[in-house]
Amino acid sequence: MAERDWIRRYFAPLACSQGAAGLTDDTAELYPASGPTVITTDAMVEGVHFLATDPIDTVARKLVRVNVSDILSSGAMPSEALLTLGWPADRPETELATFAAALGEELGAWIAGLIGGDTVSSPAGLFLSLTMTGRCLGTKPVRRSGAKAEDDLWVTGEIGGARRGFLARAAGEASPWIGVLHAPDLPPLAAAGLLARHATAAMDVSDGLLGDARSLAEASGVGAEIDFESVPFAGGAANLAEMIDLGTWGDDYQLLFTAPPDAREELLLEAAQQGIRMSRIGQIQAEPGLFVTSESGPVNLPETVAFEHGRIGMPATRP
Amino acid sequence: MAERDWIRRYFAPLACSQGAAGLTDDTAELYPASGPTVITTDAMVEGVHFLATDPIDTVARKLVRVNVSDILSSGAMPSEALLTLGWPADRPETELATFAAALGEELGAWIAGLIGGDTVSSPAGLFLSLTMTGRCLGTKPVRRSGAKAEDDLWVTGEIGGARRGFLARAAGEASPWIGVLHAPDLPPLAAAGLLARHATAAMDVSDGLLGDARSLAEASGVGAEIDFESVPFAGGAANLAEMIDLGTWGDDYQLLFTAPPDAREELLLEAAQQGIRMSRIGQIQAEPGLFVTSESGPVNLPETVAFEHGRIGMPATRP
Repeated sequence: MAERDWIRRYFAPLACSQGAAGLTDDTAELYPASGPTVITTDAMVEGVHFLATDPIDTVARKLVRVNVSDILSSGAMPSEALLTLGWPADRPETELATFAAALGEELGAWIAGLIGGDTVSSPAGLFLSLTMTGRCLGTKPVRRSGAKAEDDLWVTGEIGGARRGFLARAAGEASPWIGVLHAPDLPPLAAAGLLARHATAAMDVSDGLLGDARSLAEASGVGAEIDFESVPFAGGAANLAEMIDLGTWGDDYQLLFTAPPDAREELLLEAAQQGIRMSRIGQIQAEPGLFVTSESGPVNLPETVAFEHGRIGMPATRP
Repeated sequence: MAERDWIRRYFAPLACSQGAAGLTDDTAELYPASGPTVITTDAMVEGVHFLATDPIDTVARKLVRVNVSDILSSGAMPSEALLTLGWPADRPETELATFAAALGEELGAWIAGLIGGDTVSSPAGLFLSLTMTGRCLGTKPVRRSGAKAEDDLWVTGEIGGARRGFLARAAGEASPWIGVLHAPDLPPLAAAGLLARHATAAMDVSDGLLGDARSLAEASGVGAEIDFESVPFAGGAANLAEMIDLGTWGDDYQLLFTAPPDAREELLLEAAQQGIRMSRIGQIQAEPGLFVTSESGPVNLPETVAFEHGRIGMPATRP
């Protein structure tokens, strides 16, 4: 089947907005926004961010979700998406059909629409990049840099599920966490509004809770204190070593954010009303640095926590 | 050098706009627009769209230009860019420095700024994708679909330079066209305003003049008649076979557009004032189809002209 026909058959049906022009024009038109628009790009490469044998529908879902988590962390609602797809000749067309269907479903779940992109042949493995726009629910995007001393530190969902999935897969064991490794759990859309109303700073947790908390604190010119006993580790954590392992591996895509203590009650109420799982895991302090405590007192963090993969930068080349 | 440091050293200096947040945040903020914003994505893959041995600075320039041509064809000015870079481990850092410098220069030449992206490691060759926004100079984007019978058909610049470069390179001959193959010549920025004011339909010429003219006519529900003698073939064309060859190979990235005959004089005047090379190469007609004439009368077009690579679809996989 000719490549243009692939677009017509599999991707054009996902492009419902008027601005997408049915994916037949040189450019798409962004839907007019009354407030600020944010934009982000995240790429995934076979053998780096997923395995060749991973189910292709979860590759599509992960691609959408790793972008959505960035949009939500800015206090914005996902809006438009542009897909770059580098498709290897030896991947069958049935996989492309499955990929496109999952992409459409997943975008739909986040109320985002495909408006453009580029599909090219890849001489080696599959690679993908998604650009996503978001409409800010506040008057400006929530940034990493707004955390103030005394702010509470919050995280949505659970931390370490992808790590558990990775370990289970490596051991050849069946585990529900493998699904989380393939396509991360994200908080619901309503989290964007909650952050827009209350957060002083936010980011998604992609490179490990501890390293990302350090990044947020650094960007804000403050320090962060985390209480390991309050962190919602996936499946619980049996000991300190496991806490550190789950808290440094990454691929969680949950939202890490700060908010003033006087917003605490309202945050908890709104989170409960909107079904957002949320945990208060620590506090911001004036003194720069990352400080972690467990029930046995201050935790000596391994050197590796200090290694920052960088968000716009390259994710760790794991799996 | 750690990947995050690459971003800091080579790409952050290109991200001057406030919305880019120095490439340190999860999302960038688009500069507020008073009119319509368009967006496009074009990808390039080593071994498909360029050779591993092509100068890395021209790879950067081509990446920017293939996106700029889409923006200009919509009657819009380039604004923001997001880069996805899949960098192979065996490409030296000096090449990355050269790439980033050329990318910055080229974006600057089009008054566009880098605001985000993702840099990942590539297990195989280099791949790149650029997403670019543009601000429409008119009240809406110029589309492929607005051509009317009796409209003039115009093209900017020259057609076939990349083809001549490809042939020269294949023959091992030195040729100025090889530079055009590596990074296409584009009309100046002012072409965006000219199209916004006068064009009824437009697209960039990426898949060959003849096929693209057919696409534009089809999208508009009309036909196109091209006079080969009026086409500005790069280096001139000695005979009909050469005209067909240069007119079907593609990679020109010039602008193909239609405008009413009563705009003809004003168009020529503005083009002359703004240094835009522009040729009137034919006419739109009510009867669907593509009709080409030369000095010896109607031209029988080869089957291959009818093959459309598709713009949002995949470019031809030629070296």
